[in-house]
Amino acid sequence: MTSSKKLSMTAKLPLIPVILAGGAGTRLWPQSRRAHPKPFMRLPDGETLLEKTYRRALNVADGGLIVVTAQDLGFLAERELARVSAQALATSHFLLEPIGRNTAPAIALAALAAERIANGPATLLVLAADHLIADVEAFSADVRLAQTLCADDFLVTFGIRPTHPETGFGYLKLGAALGENGAHVVDAFVEKPNADTALAYVASGDYLWNSGMFGFSTTRILAALGEYAPELLAQVRVVDQARSEVRSQTHYPLEAFKALEDISIDYAVMERSPAVAAVPARFDWSDIGSWRAVSDLNSRDPDGNSAQGDTLLIGARNTTVIGSARLVAAIGVENLLIVDTPDALLVAHRDHSQAVKQVVDQLNLREDSRATQHLTVQRPWGSYSILEDGADCKVKRLTVLPGQVLSLQLHHQRSEHWTVVSGTARVTIGERSFDLESGHACFIPVNTRHRLENQTATPIHLIEVQVGSYFGEDDIVRFEDRYGRV
Amino acid sequence: MTSSKKLSMTAKLPLIPVILAGGAGTRLWPQSRRAHPKPFMRLPDGETLLEKTYRRALNVADGGLIVVTAQDLGFLAERELARVSAQALATSHFLLEPIGRNTAPAIALAALAAERIANGPATLLVLAADHLIADVEAFSADVRLAQTLCADDFLVTFGIRPTHPETGFGYLKLGAALGENGAHVVDAFVEKPNADTALAYVASGDYLWNSGMFGFSTTRILAALGEYAPELLAQVRVVDQARSEVRSQTHYPLEAFKALEDISIDYAVMERSPAVAAVPARFDWSDIGSWRAVSDLNSRDPDGNSAQGDTLLIGARNTTVIGSARLVAAIGVENLLIVDTPDALLVAHRDHSQAVKQVVDQLNLREDSRATQHLTVQRPWGSYSILEDGADCKVKRLTVLPGQVLSLQLHHQRSEHWTVVSGTARVTIGERSFDLESGHACFIPVNTRHRLENQTATPIHLIEVQVGSYFGEDDIVRFEDRYGRV
Repeated sequence: MTSSKKLSMTAKLPLIPVILAGGAGTRLWPQSRRAHPKPFMRLPDGETLLEKTYRRALNVADGGLIVVTAQDLGFLAERELARVSAQALATSHFLLEPIGRNTAPAIALAALAAERIANGPATLLVLAADHLIADVEAFSADVRLAQTLCADDFLVTFGIRPTHPETGFGYLKLGAALGENGAHVVDAFVEKPNADTALAYVASGDYLWNSGMFGFSTTRILAALGEYAPELLAQVRVVDQARSEVRSQTHYPLEAFKALEDISIDYAVMERSPAVAAVPARFDWSDIGSWRAVSDLNSRDPDGNSAQGDTLLIGARNTTVIGSARLVAAIGVENLLIVDTPDALLVAHRDHSQAVKQVVDQLNLREDSRATQHLTVQRPWGSYSILEDGADCKVKRLTVLPGQVLSLQLHHQRSEHWTVVSGTARVTIGERSFDLESGHACFIPVNTRHRLENQTATPIHLIEVQVGSYFGEDDIVRFEDRYGRV
Repeated sequence: MTSSKKLSMTAKLPLIPVILAGGAGTRLWPQSRRAHPKPFMRLPDGETLLEKTYRRALNVADGGLIVVTAQDLGFLAERELARVSAQALATSHFLLEPIGRNTAPAIALAALAAERIANGPATLLVLAADHLIADVEAFSADVRLAQTLCADDFLVTFGIRPTHPETGFGYLKLGAALGENGAHVVDAFVEKPNADTALAYVASGDYLWNSGMFGFSTTRILAALGEYAPELLAQVRVVDQARSEVRSQTHYPLEAFKALEDISIDYAVMERSPAVAAVPARFDWSDIGSWRAVSDLNSRDPDGNSAQGDTLLIGARNTTVIGSARLVAAIGVENLLIVDTPDALLVAHRDHSQAVKQVVDQLNLREDSRATQHLTVQRPWGSYSILEDGADCKVKRLTVLPGQVLSLQLHHQRSEHWTVVSGTARVTIGERSFDLESGHACFIPVNTRHRLENQTATPIHLIEVQVGSYFGEDDIVRFEDRYGRV
């Protein structure tokens, strides 16, 4: 029996999850921003969506993961994986895109990387980093089903049984059943429908939401790319060959990457191939595509309110408050979403939460950094929070993680004072290096090389007071940098 | 003609405005708080209500003012008067209450002070510090009318022609007209009515709102107090005799002050006297008693929105945003009041803005300082803003005004670093005093006496980083203090 022999052989291919952790960070602004998009948002349970995705993926993986993310977010993606498992971090690979180019190029590069990692073909399980799936058991069972379909050379997509006539998703039209296991052939991929069409789709029972999660063998997807998108695959091979690898990170040259077509795997391959199978998900699923979706996930009090943070609700109904350190008092309001961050506040009617994208668009138009950046900025060495940004000074709180070191640098237009408030900092100023204990301070004159380092096993916290006339991040002349930023 | 002779004699009494600048600061929370109540709130035009009241009062005064306020607010009341006129500040008097005791004791103390200032009887014009009156001409004309009535020995109250059946005010029932000038005898003072009664009052045309502004001669009000509230007057005389005067400030001892009855001048005198005249105001008037009242004063765009600060409105209607430095984005909301401050946010439906008092009550119950204090705190020497309040450090931005000096002090549980960011500070640490220029810093060890002084003509700004385990304002041991706080 040739076909069962083939099945048993290819079923042994290692399963390598591919986590796509990108995103513009617009739909959940102001918590999500381009420099800290949705997968990196910490949920009330203390975990990020990315962390949850890592756990879900490692549960079915035969080894480590492949994570595809933006170059600027690579260290954050690594940090989140370190929270899950040091071993997973050691066996995983990070493909860092210098610029976003949609899912087809990302998956093609991941397929090439996977074959190097597996030293031969592998099965890829492509997952978005910003989906919420609570039932990991059901998810794993569906992945096992997808694996058998991949072994039968299908391109597999995971479909979600619609709960309402959503117009924001594409749909899969199911064809013939593939045996008794629930899987179906996919007859068609259909675009985001209008409301009437969506209603008809849901009523028919023949349509599933297209989740954006996929399974296929590297052999199969590369063959399909070769057949349906040969130019793209050729470009991807050029980019892949120009890669440079540093530890577990793979970097690609910007110019070659720019030349890649910005196209989704759905357009490039899935919609064109006759050999696509759908696994209807038996797990719960949300892509958390709006603040309304977030509020739908929260548990509510009898008045329909949910509140995180320091809040005081009086006569409020059906209102969701996602607070920060500030006190949020809401009186007599209904159907609101209130999302507070240190530098931007959103107050939206529940039914209009999709319009938050317009806010981000307007901010981007006026080049307002609050579209993309938080007051707290993550860095490879730790993080900083801006406490004051005045005409005469800028004050930051810095956290330097154990073993990390900032670049050797100088500033032309500002002097700096560092006061260590906890931990012991190793400081270099000019030719001198010394330890600075908690409660002590040092002065860095203008145009003087300096460096801050944590040689201990506990984080350092310090307050930096910059005095001068210009405080931009571009007044940093770097001489040495562990993180390749010179 | 005895009466006209008497008129011409008493009409010559000097007019001394008495500004009552107290208030709990609850109704306009979070902008107004007990430590910085409504009269001290800065309006969009850059002036405070108190400043506007000063100008209005000085326009009719024959000399300086008497300002009655809380002891903690005295320096602020002075600072606001200095913004109006140095001469007015030099000729005015500040009666500082160690604890709030309503309007009857305040007015009685003001009457005694006025007779000392005038070296004999005077006419008092009692004004609340938190009313908004735009038409200063009409106001002055009404004050002149009130003066003639005072000269005829009336107790005068200013009444406001109702614009709606307000249930939050007391009403004056008008009696016989007093000549052709518009003034009437007051037949009765009536309490805050229910809605139906208020409607009937407004329909009748015989009722005015009781504004809380009064006029009377010191002779007349002291005689009336002696007749209707003799015990209170006796207590007030005790308190007055125990006063201490420092420059233009009059201080009263706390224990004696506590013994004063907490009673309004309406209850104590006005409602009991048959000789009360009402001047129906010909000026516009608002007591700005709620955020809704504030929003009613603002100009609106065609959708009924008004926005101060950094705001972005999309599809909002009939919404008022009073922002601060943070970006406030409002989407698809209606009939909201959004008031943002650095540490507390209010989102209220327009029709429920009175319930903000409940928020303040709840905060007071849990001893939350955000009921009473802002992150920026005014001090006699200038102000400070809390930039960071962490477990391991506290960071403040300090402003020291020209010629001012902080107390000589020490802290047991924290060291401090001062970095001057503009101006030149005179610093004393232990036995050493020196000038610290902009861009330079100094270190103040635990248990070390230190002092900060501005000997220049321009404000100093500096960043203070406190490091230690406790950062409360009560860890200040003061040795010398120009402002009497030792």
